[in-house]
Amino acid sequence: MQTVSENRAFGGVQGVYSHASDVCGCDMTFAVYMPPQAEEGPVPVLWYLSGLTCTHENAMTKAGAQAYAAREGLAVVFPDTSPRGEGIADDDAYDLGKGAGFYVDATEEPWAPNFRMWSYITEELPKLVFRNFQLEEGAQGITGHSMGGHGALTIAMTDPDRFRSLSAFAPIANPTKSDWGRKQLSAYLGAEEATWAAHDASLLLRENGWKGHLLIDQGASDQFLDLLKPEALAAAIAERRQPATFRMQKGYDHSYYFVASFMEEHIAFHAEALYG
Amino acid sequence: MQTVSENRAFGGVQGVYSHASDVCGCDMTFAVYMPPQAEEGPVPVLWYLSGLTCTHENAMTKAGAQAYAAREGLAVVFPDTSPRGEGIADDDAYDLGKGAGFYVDATEEPWAPNFRMWSYITEELPKLVFRNFQLEEGAQGITGHSMGGHGALTIAMTDPDRFRSLSAFAPIANPTKSDWGRKQLSAYLGAEEATWAAHDASLLLRENGWKGHLLIDQGASDQFLDLLKPEALAAAIAERRQPATFRMQKGYDHSYYFVASFMEEHIAFHAEALYG
Repeated sequence: MQTVSENRAFGGVQGVYSHASDVCGCDMTFAVYMPPQAEEGPVPVLWYLSGLTCTHENAMTKAGAQAYAAREGLAVVFPDTSPRGEGIADDDAYDLGKGAGFYVDATEEPWAPNFRMWSYITEELPKLVFRNFQLEEGAQGITGHSMGGHGALTIAMTDPDRFRSLSAFAPIANPTKSDWGRKQLSAYLGAEEATWAAHDASLLLRENGWKGHLLIDQGASDQFLDLLKPEALAAAIAERRQPATFRMQKGYDHSYYFVASFMEEHIAFHAEALYG
Repeated sequence: MQTVSENRAFGGVQGVYSHASDVCGCDMTFAVYMPPQAEEGPVPVLWYLSGLTCTHENAMTKAGAQAYAAREGLAVVFPDTSPRGEGIADDDAYDLGKGAGFYVDATEEPWAPNFRMWSYITEELPKLVFRNFQLEEGAQGITGHSMGGHGALTIAMTDPDRFRSLSAFAPIANPTKSDWGRKQLSAYLGAEEATWAAHDASLLLRENGWKGHLLIDQGASDQFLDLLKPEALAAAIAERRQPATFRMQKGYDHSYYFVASFMEEHIAFHAEALYG
C-alpha cells in the first residue's frame, strides 16, 4: 500500500492510498479519514460508496463527512467505483465501464477480468484497511449515494453479519426495473435476469429485510427520480414492516449539496449504532 | 445576471451566476449561498475570497461553509479570483494572470485593461449582489484563504466602514517581502514599490490597525510558510496592540482540509459580529 497524500483535517487525518488489487487486476486508489479518537485506539468505521462517474475523491472533498466523523469518532473509507488504468475495458457512456462498476462481479466479456467491485468491497479492501488502520472490525456501518447507495444496500443485506448499520442517499433502488440497472446488469452479468435479483435492493429488502433500522434520504426534486425508483424501496419497506426512516426531502436534487446537507444525520445515525 | 445553477443545500440555496463585468471587461462568474433565514428577509453577508489558481467553485464545494452559514443565518458570496476568457492576458505561471488577480487594479500592460479585481470586489460585485439578493448591506464581513486572505485583509483595512468583521485563513501576509507578492505587484502595479504598500496586510495593520477583533488561522505545517510570512502579521498585531486571535494550528497544511477544519469557528465569529 502506498500513501498518495495525507492532510490534517478536523484533528484527524484524511489520507489517500493506492495498492495493487489482485481482485481487480489493476492499481486501485481509496481514501480513509481517521478521526482524532484513533490516536487512542481502534475506532468504528463507516464505508461510503460513491455513485456513477465518481472516484474516491468526490465524497472525500464534497460531502463534508470529516467534520461529523471527527466529532463522533468514526473512520470513513471512500473506495473508488471501478477498476481503472490502461488495458481496462471501458465504454463511451458515462454509466458503463470506468466509474460505473455497479458493485457486482462481472461474468461477461470484456468486463469479467477486472470489473469485480463486489469482491473488492466485500473481501479485498476490508482485509487491506483492517491490516493497515486502527479500525474495529466488529463495528462497521455502510452508506452510499446513488449507485453507491445501491451498493451499500445490496452488500449489507447480503452479509448482515458484517455490518451493524445501514443507510443510503438517493440509492438506485430497483435496478432490475430501471435503465440504471438493466443496462449494467445485462452487460456485466449477462441476459439471464434471475442472476440480477441479488443486486436489487428493493427485491432483497422484500425477501430478506434488514436486521436493524434503515435510514434512507431522497431528494424530492431529484432529476433522476425516474431512474432511482425510490417508490419500489418505499413499498418494500411498507410491505415488509421493515424498521426504517424513509425521507423525501423537499427541494433537494441529486447533487452533493443534497448529500452534504444530510451527512451529519447519517454519521450520527451510524455512530449511535456502532458505539451502542 | 444569468443563473448558471441553483441547488438546495442545508435548507437554503447554493447558486452560481454570471454577468458581463464592466470593470473586468469580460463575463465573470460568482457563487452565492443564501441560508434558509433569507426567506424571512435580508440576511448578513460574508465575503469569501479564494486563493491562487482557484475559481468561485473551490470554496463553494470544498470548504463546508454552507452547513455553518445555514445554522448562523449568513449568506456567503464566493467571487472568482481573476478575469477569464479569450482575449484576456495570461501567463504560463500558475501565480500570475488567470486565477491570480491578487485583488489589485493593474496599471501595467498587458494586465491593465482587465485585471481590476480590487474594483470588482469593492464596487461592481457588491452593487450587483445587493441589487439581486436579500442581503443586509450594513452587515458585511469578509474572509479568505491565502491570496484571498490577503485580499480580505487589505480590502477591509482600506474600507473599514464597509465591513463589521474580518478574518483570514493562511493569508499572504507580507507580499512586499515575498515571492508571492513582489512578482505580482511588480507585474500588475509596476516597479515603483511605494504603490505596493497599500496591498500589504502587515504594513496596513501596522499603519491603520483594524477597528474590530481580528481572527487569523495558520497551519503550522503549511508548505508555503516561507511565502505567506505569518510572522510579519503576528509582529504587526503585537506592535500595534491590535485586538486579535492569531492561531498557529499544529499539523495543518495549506489545503482546503485546513480551511474546512476551522470554517465553523470563522463563520460563528462573523455571525456574532454581524448579528451583534
